[in-house]
Amino acid sequence: MVFFSSLTPVFIAIICVLIGVILKKNNGERGKHEIKSKPPSRPWVDEDLKDGSDHQVEEEEWQGFDENIAHVPFTAERYSEAEMIKRSQEFYKLLNKRRSVRFLSDEPVPREVIDNVIRTAGTSPSGAHTEPWTFVVVQDPEIKHKIREIVEEEEEINYKKRMGDRWVNDLKRLRTNWIKEYLDTAPYLILIFKQVYGRLPNGKRKTHYYNEISVSIACGILLAALQVLFLLKYSILITMRHVSAGYAQGHV
Amino acid sequence: MVFFSSLTPVFIAIICVLIGVILKKNNGERGKHEIKSKPPSRPWVDEDLKDGSDHQVEEEEWQGFDENIAHVPFTAERYSEAEMIKRSQEFYKLLNKRRSVRFLSDEPVPREVIDNVIRTAGTSPSGAHTEPWTFVVVQDPEIKHKIREIVEEEEEINYKKRMGDRWVNDLKRLRTNWIKEYLDTAPYLILIFKQVYGRLPNGKRKTHYYNEISVSIACGILLAALQVLFLLKYSILITMRHVSAGYAQGHV
Repeated sequence: MVFFSSLTPVFIAIICVLIGVILKKNNGERGKHEIKSKPPSRPWVDEDLKDGSDHQVEEEEWQGFDENIAHVPFTAERYSEAEMIKRSQEFYKLLNKRRSVRFLSDEPVPREVIDNVIRTAGTSPSGAHTEPWTFVVVQDPEIKHKIREIVEEEEEINYKKRMGDRWVNDLKRLRTNWIKEYLDTAPYLILIFKQVYGRLPNGKRKTHYYNEISVSIACGILLAALQVLFLLKYSILITMRHVSAGYAQGHV
Repeated sequence: MVFFSSLTPVFIAIICVLIGVILKKNNGERGKHEIKSKPPSRPWVDEDLKDGSDHQVEEEEWQGFDENIAHVPFTAERYSEAEMIKRSQEFYKLLNKRRSVRFLSDEPVPREVIDNVIRTAGTSPSGAHTEPWTFVVVQDPEIKHKIREIVEEEEEINYKKRMGDRWVNDLKRLRTNWIKEYLDTAPYLILIFKQVYGRLPNGKRKTHYYNEISVSIACGILLAALQVLFLLKYSILITMRHVSAGYAQGHV
């Protein structure tokens, strides 16, 4: 185990806290979404339309806001065919070197890099352009440690009770557990929150459609932006590939 | 409208069909996940653990498979601090030029590029490394047109019935609707399926934990890989930014 710790270059543990705790509304208490007349039953589409956004409707009004939506310049030019092939190959090679490691380096990383990476994630598309994400960077060792304690407490309950035997068995081959030393080691933690809804300038509620999917897409772009910081070079050392990606996604 | 059609360089319409139609099991018929004893109620975690994977448990057995999980080389080296800052800035600038356009160019793109982009998406992390995605590339004009018809039919019902007045109003300012000409125009469509579960070599069922989140993260990486094909240069032309990202995510 100590063997791995010297190899790990990745410096960021990503935790997706999968509720809008930054907002007070609990995702659990969902209301009914009104539908005027019963459409033909297409369960996959109905399922698709659900995403934590079908909660009880408060007073809500977008109209009048964002009417003059920002128009920004649009880049059109792509590379030549040969160059596109080359770039797509190189990007694949680079991204294909990403690993979901569990032992992280404590080497410092300029804060500016972290900010740029988060800005990049923020360019992600989102349902109805609601941008339903909040990124929180934690650098203070005490706060990191408190987060580790909370995460480990929850994860232990996950492993022992919530996930069930089957899931725990499925994870065995990946040798993961609820101990997460790297949350102390990493120079930064990026906590990622999904906002189930937002607030308009007038204080009224703004629904965030497809918020979980949108935040997850942003996480994918974040991972790509992080990988861009690494050289396209192999080390001789060996590790497990893509060990469960839970930390890039889920559990807290 | 025609005004925009000349500017649009993006050549791929991404459609996330948010069910495992490639598999026969319907996401709707969910069973109960057995939990041995009631853990402390933490609704956000319970919510998090749900993801279409808590369906009725069939016979299922991972043990014995993948015991000798592939160990692959691990890249460790990152750039110097100055170089990391520069690279993170440039990647941000490049990704920040991505737009969710609705009018696409029909210019051809080498198929090899598309394959590389999908390979890149496939490097995404996933819950318990289940890789619960299927990418289908469609190039045949007739099939593209059939897909357009199906999508438009569903989207019309979405707009008129399923989504409700509030949602439709929220989309108004983005001027989207259910007409999707670009599904005919684009040289390729990449259909993205989430697999709610898979099959082991022995035919038994393999649960795909966090499948929707995993596929969405892969979509984020796919979008990044596509954007890498574009030059870091502005055109003078103007379009709406991030018009609803539904097509990178949801509706079919």
